[in-house]
Amino acid sequence: MVGGGPGAFIGGVHRMAAALDGEFELVAGAFASRPDRSREQGRALGLDARRVYGTWREMAEAEAALGEDRRIEAVSIVTPNHLHHPVATAFLNAGIPVICDKPMTTTLADAEELCDTVERTGLTFALTHNYTGYPMVREARHQVHTGRLGTVRKVVAEYPQGWLSTRLEETGHKQARWRQDPERAGWSSAVGDIGSHAHNLAHYVTGLEIDAVFADLSAQVAGRVMEDDAGMLVRFAGGARGVFMASQVSTGEENGLALRVYGEKMGLVWRQERPDELHLLFPDAPRQTLTRGSPWLSAAAQHATRLPPGHPEGFIEAFANIYRGAGRVIGAALAGTEADPLDRDFPDHADGARGMHFIESVLKSDARERWVAMEGDA
Amino acid sequence: MVGGGPGAFIGGVHRMAAALDGEFELVAGAFASRPDRSREQGRALGLDARRVYGTWREMAEAEAALGEDRRIEAVSIVTPNHLHHPVATAFLNAGIPVICDKPMTTTLADAEELCDTVERTGLTFALTHNYTGYPMVREARHQVHTGRLGTVRKVVAEYPQGWLSTRLEETGHKQARWRQDPERAGWSSAVGDIGSHAHNLAHYVTGLEIDAVFADLSAQVAGRVMEDDAGMLVRFAGGARGVFMASQVSTGEENGLALRVYGEKMGLVWRQERPDELHLLFPDAPRQTLTRGSPWLSAAAQHATRLPPGHPEGFIEAFANIYRGAGRVIGAALAGTEADPLDRDFPDHADGARGMHFIESVLKSDARERWVAMEGDA
Amino acid sequence: MVGGGPGAFIGGVHRMAAALDGEFELVAGAFASRPDRSREQGRALGLDARRVYGTWREMAEAEAALGEDRRIEAVSIVTPNHLHHPVATAFLNAGIPVICDKPMTTTLADAEELCDTVERTGLTFALTHNYTGYPMVREARHQVHTGRLGTVRKVVAEYPQGWLSTRLEETGHKQARWRQDPERAGWSSAVGDIGSHAHNLAHYVTGLEIDAVFADLSAQVAGRVMEDDAGMLVRFAGGARGVFMASQVSTGEENGLALRVYGEKMGLVWRQERPDELHLLFPDAPRQTLTRGSPWLSAAAQHATRLPPGHPEGFIEAFANIYRGAGRVIGAALAGTEADPLDRDFPDHADGARGMHFIESVLKSDARERWVAMEGDA
Amino acid sequence: MVGGGPGAFIGGVHRMAAALDGEFELVAGAFASRPDRSREQGRALGLDARRVYGTWREMAEAEAALGEDRRIEAVSIVTPNHLHHPVATAFLNAGIPVICDKPMTTTLADAEELCDTVERTGLTFALTHNYTGYPMVREARHQVHTGRLGTVRKVVAEYPQGWLSTRLEETGHKQARWRQDPERAGWSSAVGDIGSHAHNLAHYVTGLEIDAVFADLSAQVAGRVMEDDAGMLVRFAGGARGVFMASQVSTGEENGLALRVYGEKMGLVWRQERPDELHLLFPDAPRQTLTRGSPWLSAAAQHATRLPPGHPEGFIEAFANIYRGAGRVIGAALAGTEADPLDRDFPDHADGARGMHFIESVLKSDARERWVAMEGDA
Repeated sequence: MVGGGPGAFIGGVHRMAAALDGEFELVAGAFASRPDRSREQGRALGLDARRVYGTWREMAEAEAALGEDRRIEAVSIVTPNHLHHPVATAFLNAGIPVICDKPMTTTLADAEELCDTVERTGLTFALTHNYTGYPMVREARHQVHTGRLGTVRKVVAEYPQGWLSTRLEETGHKQARWRQDPERAGWSSAVGDIGSHAHNLAHYVTGLEIDAVFADLSAQVAGRVMEDDAGMLVRFAGGARGVFMASQVSTGEENGLALRVYGEKMGLVWRQERPDELHLLFPDAPRQTLTRGSPWLSAAAQHATRLPPGHPEGFIEAFANIYRGAGRVIGAALAGTEADPLDRDFPDHADGARGMHFIESVLKSDARERWVAMEGDA
Repeated sequence: MVGGGPGAFIGGVHRMAAALDGEFELVAGAFASRPDRSREQGRALGLDARRVYGTWREMAEAEAALGEDRRIEAVSIVTPNHLHHPVATAFLNAGIPVICDKPMTTTLADAEELCDTVERTGLTFALTHNYTGYPMVREARHQVHTGRLGTVRKVVAEYPQGWLSTRLEETGHKQARWRQDPERAGWSSAVGDIGSHAHNLAHYVTGLEIDAVFADLSAQVAGRVMEDDAGMLVRFAGGARGVFMASQVSTGEENGLALRVYGEKMGLVWRQERPDELHLLFPDAPRQTLTRGSPWLSAAAQHATRLPPGHPEGFIEAFANIYRGAGRVIGAALAGTEADPLDRDFPDHADGARGMHFIESVLKSDARERWVAMEGDA
Repeated sequence: MVGGGPGAFIGGVHRMAAALDGEFELVAGAFASRPDRSREQGRALGLDARRVYGTWREMAEAEAALGEDRRIEAVSIVTPNHLHHPVATAFLNAGIPVICDKPMTTTLADAEELCDTVERTGLTFALTHNYTGYPMVREARHQVHTGRLGTVRKVVAEYPQGWLSTRLEETGHKQARWRQDPERAGWSSAVGDIGSHAHNLAHYVTGLEIDAVFADLSAQVAGRVMEDDAGMLVRFAGGARGVFMASQVSTGEENGLALRVYGEKMGLVWRQERPDELHLLFPDAPRQTLTRGSPWLSAAAQHATRLPPGHPEGFIEAFANIYRGAGRVIGAALAGTEADPLDRDFPDHADGARGMHFIESVLKSDARERWVAMEGDA
Repeated sequence: MVGGGPGAFIGGVHRMAAALDGEFELVAGAFASRPDRSREQGRALGLDARRVYGTWREMAEAEAALGEDRRIEAVSIVTPNHLHHPVATAFLNAGIPVICDKPMTTTLADAEELCDTVERTGLTFALTHNYTGYPMVREARHQVHTGRLGTVRKVVAEYPQGWLSTRLEETGHKQARWRQDPERAGWSSAVGDIGSHAHNLAHYVTGLEIDAVFADLSAQVAGRVMEDDAGMLVRFAGGARGVFMASQVSTGEENGLALRVYGEKMGLVWRQERPDELHLLFPDAPRQTLTRGSPWLSAAAQHATRLPPGHPEGFIEAFANIYRGAGRVIGAALAGTEADPLDRDFPDHADGARGMHFIESVLKSDARERWVAMEGDA
C-alpha cells in the first residue's frame, strides 16, 4: 500500500475491503510522505519493518527486486490524487499490478499516458470507483443491459454532500485540506471528487456515452479557488438526456449519491444510503423493490453478495467486491488461468480516462458557458 | 365556474377544494365549450338551470347584470390554458374576482396585459399554484425567511412524472391531448405544465429572483412538437445556484414534485408525495422531521392545517387553502374589512407573470443554447 | 349534527367529510350540552337559528315533526361516547337515519339494544370507523378476500399514540378530559378509543372472527383509573394468531395505526400515516408497493379514490368515503332505489356490537389474567 | 473454529467478522461432523492441514497440548445449538477462551452449568448476540441509560421473518432442517432462534429485567413440532410493559428485527434493516434521526463505528464489533493489561443464561396458558 498513513480515511477502507474476503494480506507499504510517519503506521499495522518503506520509489524498487515469489502481488495506491500517476507508473513498470483510488490522475493527458502504460505492461489496473461494487448497482446495470427499460431516455445522477459547507480546509482537517488544494487534488473539487463518481455510476449502469455536456460551477463558500457545487446537463449519444449534480455544500447531506434511470418501459432508482434496495417503476404495474440477496436477482448481483436479504451490507462490502474481483483476476493471471467474468467486473484504466475526459469537459464548458462536445468519449 | 365539464380532472379538484371549508358554494357555471355539455354538467351538479350558461361570455354578462347582491362572488377558471386570459379579462371587467388555474396565460405578453387589468380593477386574482397551499411548504418558507438557513446557496426543484411516457395524446385521452396541443396549452409542455410549479415553489419558499437560466429541452417520445423533458440550470440573484427538472417521461413516477434548499446553516427537503413532513438537515446536529399539525410550527403552517399530527392531509386540503384564503380576502373586500394576512398567502397575478417570464426564458435559452438573463424577474 | 360544539375535534372532521362530495348539507344541530354554546356554534356555522336546538331531545322531536320533505335526512352523532346510545335511539325512533361516531355505545348491553332498534326501524346506521374508508385498506381487504394471501396465519394490528404521555386530562384539555372519564368514555381508554379501531381494521381486512383474547392492560401514567396501554394476544377462528397493541403513552408517536397480515402466499402491510401505499410481500418475488389511484387496483379501491396517483389523499377523504357511502344508501332508501354495493361499504351496527364485545372481553381477560372466549363474535 | 463447514451460513459470517479488523487470524478448525468434510473446508480456507481436525474433541486436546504460545487464542463455536454446551465446556476446560454463537445452550440447566465453568476458569466467554454490535443500538442504550427517556414505560421488540413460511426443512435446506429439529436446535424454533435476539436486544438497550411473561406459541405450518410464531406479553420489574413478537412465517419479511422503547420523556425506534438510523420521538419537539458516524453520538456508538455518516455499515460490521471487543479483551488478558471498557461491551455467559431462562419461561407460559414469573431474571 502506498498512502493511507495516520489520519487518512480511505486507506483504512482499502485495508478493510482487502481483508474481508481473505484475497489479500497487507505485507508492505509506504504509508506517508514522511518516512517516520510511514514507519509509525507500519508498526501500528504490525508489518515486518523491512517492508515498511520511507518512500514509494524505494518501495517500488525494493519490491521489484524481491522476485515474483516474494514480492507483493499488487499495490494499493491511496495517496492524494496528484501522486496516482507517478506511483502507478512506477509500480506497473516494476511489473506489479495496481489497485488505485480514484480519480486515476489529475489531468486527461496523464490519464492517457497511464492507459498506455497499462496497455503496454499488460498488467491489471483496477480503479476503486467503489460504488459500482454494490450488488444492487450491478442489478441495475443488468436490468438496463437486458432491455427491461427499453431505450433509456433520462438519467439523473446526483451526489450531494454537506461536509464542506464550512471552510473545513482552514481548520487543519487533513482530508478537506488536500481536496481543496489544486496541486494535490487536481483543478476540480466537487466534480473531481464526487461528480466523477456520479458520472462513472451513470455510465456503468446505462452504458451510454456522452455527446456533450453543459456545466455551471461555483464556489459557494467564500475564498475557495475550486468549485464546491456543480450542475451539469448532459446529452447522451442516441438522444437521452441527463442531469448530473455534485455538491459539497448541500448542508446536512451525508453521502447522497443517487441514480435514476428512466426508459421507455421502466424506470429505476438507487440510493447509496440505502444500498440494499433497487426500486423499479412501471407505467402499467405496481412498483417493485428488489432487495439484495434475493434468489431472483441476476448472477452479477448474487456474485457480489455475501449475506441473505435483510442482513444489511454496506460500503465496505461493496468496496471489497472491487478488491475481490481484482484479486482473483490478478491471481488468475499469475496462475495462467481464466478469471470468472463476474470477477472482471471492476472499473479499469479506460474508466479512469473516461472520467478525466468528463472532468476536463465540464471545466471547459463552465469556463466557456457553452456546450462542450465529448465526441471521443469512450 | 368556467370549464370543468364532464371528464375534466382539475374542475372536480377545484369544486372539492372550494367546498371543504364552506367558504364557497357553487351556484353558476359555463362548464364546457359545447353548450349542451355545459348544461349536462350543470344538471349533474344540481345547479339552478338558469345559472348554467352555454358560453363563458354569456355567463360574464349575465352574472354582471344580476347585481352585487345576487351575482357570483368570484369565478373559478379551469379551462385549457389558452382561455385563461380572455375569460379572466371578461370577468374582471365585469367586476367579478377571479380564481384561475395555472398557468395564468399562454404568453408573457398576455400575462402582462392581464396584470394591468387586475391592477386597474383592483379585484382579487388568485392563481392556483396549489402546492404553495401545503402547510409544510409554508413552514419551509418560514424557515428560510426567518433566517434559519442563513444565506441560501443551492436550490434543487424537480418535478418528475411518467404519465406521458407513451403517446397518451394519440389515444383520445382528453387531458393529454390538450396539454400536447400548442394552441391550447401554450408552446411548452413539461415546463409549462409542471416546471412552472417547480419554479413557483422554489420562488415561494426562498424568495429568490432568477438572474439567468440555461435550459435543455427535448421531446423524448417520437412525434411530439413540444418538450416532454427539461433540465434547467439557474443562477439566482445573490449567487445561489439552482437545478430545476421537469419531466413527463420519467416512467413510473407519479407526481414527484420535490424541493431541496441548502443554506449556510441548514438544509431542508420537502416532497409532495409525503407532504406532511419537512426534513431539516444540519451540519452540527441530528436531522429533524417536522410534521404538520405540531404545535411548534409557525403560525403560517398552523393556519393552513385542519387536523392534528398523524392524521394525513393531502392535495385537496392544500388546494382548499388557496380557496379559503381567496374566499376570505374576497369576503373582506366585499365587507370592507381587513383580511387576516395569513389568508392573503395565495399566488396572484404577479406570480403568474413571473411564471410566464420563466417559461419564455427557458424556451429562449433552449433555442439559443446559451444563458438567458431574466433581469426583469420580479 | 348532535355534538361538535366549540373546541371539539371530531365534529369539524365530520362536517368537512360531509361537505367534500356535496352529498350532505348541514342544516340543523344541537351542538353542545349547554344551549347557549349550541346556539353560538350554530351561528358560527351560518345555520338558520330556528334549526339550532338547545338539546338533542328537542332536536329529535322538532325535526321529526317537520315531516319527511323538510326534516334532516340523517343525523351525525359526535358527542362523547356515553350519549351515543340515547341520542341514536331517539333519532332512529323519530325515523331519522344515523351516522354515529365510534364506539357505538359504552357497554355491550347498550350496543345490543341499539342493534335491535336499528333492525326494528330498518333505518341506515353508519358507524364512523373511518379508517376503513381509506382506499388502500379496501384494496387490502380485496387482496385477502380474493385469496391472494392464501390462508391468513398472522395479524399484527397496532395503534400507538403518545398524546396522553403526560396527564393532559388535568390541564383542562377538553378531549383528554372526557376520554379519561369513565362516565363519559366508557370503562376503557386505550382499548376503547383506539384499540377498537385496530380491532375493527383487522376484522374489516381479514374477515376473521376471534375465538379468544388475552390482554394485559396498564395505566402507565400515575393517577389514571383507566388503562393507557394495552397488549393483546388473539386466537382467530381457524387457527391464525394475532397481536394487537393500543397505547396512548407511546411518547412521540402521532397516530400510528398499522396493520400487517401474513398469509401462506403473501403478506401485506398498511400504515395509516402513509395511507396511499399498500405493501405486498412475497416469498418468491420482489416486494410491491401499490399506490392509491392506480388503474390496476380493485373496483373497491378505485371507488374510494378522488385523485390520480401521487396526489395525496388523507384522513378527511377517507372519512368522507364513509359519509358518501352512507349518504348514497340513505338517498337510495328515500328514493326507493338500489344503492351501489360499493357505497354500502361502511361500518354499521353489527360492527359496533362486535367492537363492544371485543372491548368487554379484553377488560375481562385483563381482570382474570386468562384467555377469554369470544364464541359469539359475529 | 468449530462448525462452519461447507454450506453453513453463520460460519462464513464469523470468519468475515473476525477478519475485518485484523484482530484474529483463522489458523485451526474442526469444521464439520464428518472428518472428510472438515478437511475439505480446511483446504478451501487455506489452513495448515495439521491444524484441521476431524472432531472438536480432537481439536480441543491437540490445541491445548500446543502450549500457550502456539495454540489458538480463542475458539469460535458455530455448530448447531446442541453442541454449544459440550464444545464450549471442552475448550474452556482446555484453557481456551470461547466466542460462541447464540443460543448459549439448549436448556437452562446446561446454561447454568456453563456459567459455572466460565466463572471457574475465569476465561472470556463472548456470545454473538450480534445485534448489540450495531453502533446505533449502542447509542439507543446510551440514550436510555443517561436518562433521556425518563422512566421506561413500554417496550416493543419484534422479529418477523418469512423464510419458514413453507416447509423448507423438508426440501433438504440444511439450515432449515436443523433449526426445526428439537434434538439439535432445542425445543423452540421461533423463540429460540430469533425471539431470543429480540429479548436480548430489549434487555441490552433498556437494562430492564422481566417479572413475568405470557406467551402464545403456534406452529402455523402444518406438520411442525416446534412453534414458528410467537406472541409474548411482558411485565418488567418497575411496571413497564412489553410486547415481544417472533415469527418465521411472516411471509415476505426478511430480517425485520426492530425495537421501540417509550419512556416518560422520549421514545426511540431502531430497525435492523436500516441499522444506521436511530429515531428519537419527543412529546414537545420535532422528531430526530441520529445517523451512525455523527460526531455528536456517544462514545459507545463512535467506538463501534468505522466509517463516516452516509457510508453504510451493516451486519458484518456489527458482528465484527463483537469479535473486535472479545479479541481485545482476550488480548489484554493474555498481556495482563486492562481492556478498554468500550471493548468489554459484548454479550457474555450471563446474557446467555438470561436468554435460556426467558425461552424456558415462554414455553412454560404457553403450555400452562398463564403468566409465568421470572423472579430470578438477572
